[in-house]
Amino acid sequence: MIVVTGRMRIEPEHRERYAEVTTEMCRRSREEQGCEGYRVYGELEQEGRYVIVEEWADEEALQRHFGEPHTREFLTALFPLLAEPADALFHTVASTRRLDPQRGLIALD
Amino acid sequence: MIVVTGRMRIEPEHRERYAEVTTEMCRRSREEQGCEGYRVYGELEQEGRYVIVEEWADEEALQRHFGEPHTREFLTALFPLLAEPADALFHTVASTRRLDPQRGLIALD
Repeated sequence: MIVVTGRMRIEPEHRERYAEVTTEMCRRSREEQGCEGYRVYGELEQEGRYVIVEEWADEEALQRHFGEPHTREFLTALFPLLAEPADALFHTVASTRRLDPQRGLIALD
Repeated sequence: MIVVTGRMRIEPEHRERYAEVTTEMCRRSREEQGCEGYRVYGELEQEGRYVIVEEWADEEALQRHFGEPHTREFLTALFPLLAEPADALFHTVASTRRLDPQRGLIALD
């Protein structure tokens, strides 16, 4: 599994457009094969900072995603909205645990 | 490195209190040794859904975090605010790449 965190800062005049293009990108990406999650969030402490959190089943799904027309369209629309370069990290996951309130951290299959 | 995504849903009447307790938890956690990131975000598509994104240097730092008084205080304050059980995933990362606009995905040391 690959977990992506894409951090961005957007000036006030671009935030409405940013919300439009990112939520459209979320909807399209979640329809892709191998996409297990794709959501955009705004930071509570620092207005204008955002994160896109993505989960991909494997490298093949991620690479296919990069080749999709909607990915290119999104990056083209996004670039002029960014107040500074985005910081996108792609974590290849070795193992995952879920927090169970009673039992603590439980390994997932 | 361990990357955590903690997803929560909060009813409207609890959102102000939720923002207070989570941003306080963020501030305290970021002061901990081995904490490389701890931020709370609200989803753009679905109001009332949130994610806390955390990065920990290693398992030792994560376990120390669980033992901190502010972690217990936070969980106690958080629990009655949740509209449904939180979904907190702890990903142990094997390797990380950063997206470079010119060069594509670049492995980090």
